[in-house]
Amino acid sequence: MLLCDIGNTSYHFLEVNSAYCKNKKNSNTSIIKEYKTEVSSFNPSSIQEKIFYICVNPHVKLILSKLDNWIDLSSHVEMFNYYETMGVDRIFACEAIEDGIILDAGSAITVDIVKNGLFEGGFIYPGLNAMSKTYKNISSALDYSFNFELDLDKMPKNSRDAISYGYLKTLYREVMAQDMKLYLTGGDAKKFASIFPHAEIDEILIFKGMIKIMKKADLC
Amino acid sequence: MLLCDIGNTSYHFLEVNSAYCKNKKNSNTSIIKEYKTEVSSFNPSSIQEKIFYICVNPHVKLILSKLDNWIDLSSHVEMFNYYETMGVDRIFACEAIEDGIILDAGSAITVDIVKNGLFEGGFIYPGLNAMSKTYKNISSALDYSFNFELDLDKMPKNSRDAISYGYLKTLYREVMAQDMKLYLTGGDAKKFASIFPHAEIDEILIFKGMIKIMKKADLC
Repeated sequence: MLLCDIGNTSYHFLEVNSAYCKNKKNSNTSIIKEYKTEVSSFNPSSIQEKIFYICVNPHVKLILSKLDNWIDLSSHVEMFNYYETMGVDRIFACEAIEDGIILDAGSAITVDIVKNGLFEGGFIYPGLNAMSKTYKNISSALDYSFNFELDLDKMPKNSRDAISYGYLKTLYREVMAQDMKLYLTGGDAKKFASIFPHAEIDEILIFKGMIKIMKKADLC
Repeated sequence: MLLCDIGNTSYHFLEVNSAYCKNKKNSNTSIIKEYKTEVSSFNPSSIQEKIFYICVNPHVKLILSKLDNWIDLSSHVEMFNYYETMGVDRIFACEAIEDGIILDAGSAITVDIVKNGLFEGGFIYPGLNAMSKTYKNISSALDYSFNFELDLDKMPKNSRDAISYGYLKTLYREVMAQDMKLYLTGGDAKKFASIFPHAEIDEILIFKGMIKIMKKADLC
């Protein structure tokens, strides 16, 4: 069974055997393959088999709507508790958990709270690349890579740490203040794990939400 | 007496009568004029009288170094407690106070801590315009103006508030956690006052630091 989560820049595929869907608990043992391809270079009609997807990219969404074997899962989720313009990837990540805070580190960082299986709100923060460019564009004097080894308990006295603290500590403090189990997902999850060492990294969290919805909708 | 604080985008002038310099306490009653001009259109050799300045813009700095009536104050500050690449505007703002946290909202937002007259470190966060562009560049779906009337105690359930919370609440929490008297300065100080209603707005804080240094150096 083939699943795909499409973002602004990439197609993220997960191939699982059908046993995955029948398991009560989501287990990673049934994963056959997990891979990414660029939105700019991938042709979705090159895939012939049935594929279940969600997509935040409006251009790709239009193309996929014309391909019969690409099945959009977004219509199967109960939307009443989310909001209309909320990214479908955030919604499916929320569907994957019962309680906790999800930090999805992609082009944007989305931080969402789920309590008793219900979405309780969330916020959007710039992703690593976007924020790096932001500082660089303000001044060439701020053109540094972020220091993820930064001491978050100490006010910086050098430029690299001053921007790293501005980007990371502010996010860290807000996330930690929620005092909930933290799930890290998205392309930069591993980088953020160094400042959130207690977090659970789950790079297929969105796919887990997709499978949960598919089960409910009797699609697998 | 003419003072100038030059940033990446503008010349900020303050004209005070000489009594200002003689006052023990900095008082606003001696201010004659305060105004700004664009870096891109202003010709500094159009000013003939003596003018004391600080400048973070490397290009302008080079031009001013050739003009005899423009006097750079940066060499008069004792640097041992600051760091080499720290913006001179941040240094002079710190010189203006004895204890507190300074939020300077310009192209970048700098947040600096001073205790017993000594700089204790600080961080750099993107300014309002820069951050607005960042969200817009990530996705056209995030092209909103920030909502400064946002309820900071509530996790958002709409896109505009989700980016506003990401930008403002994270900064708010970090600043408030310092539990110090807060000074707001810089071009966007008034906008930030709506989320920091307890803060003291002081748009001439850097000039106060400049005059303090001028007194120490017997320049006024």
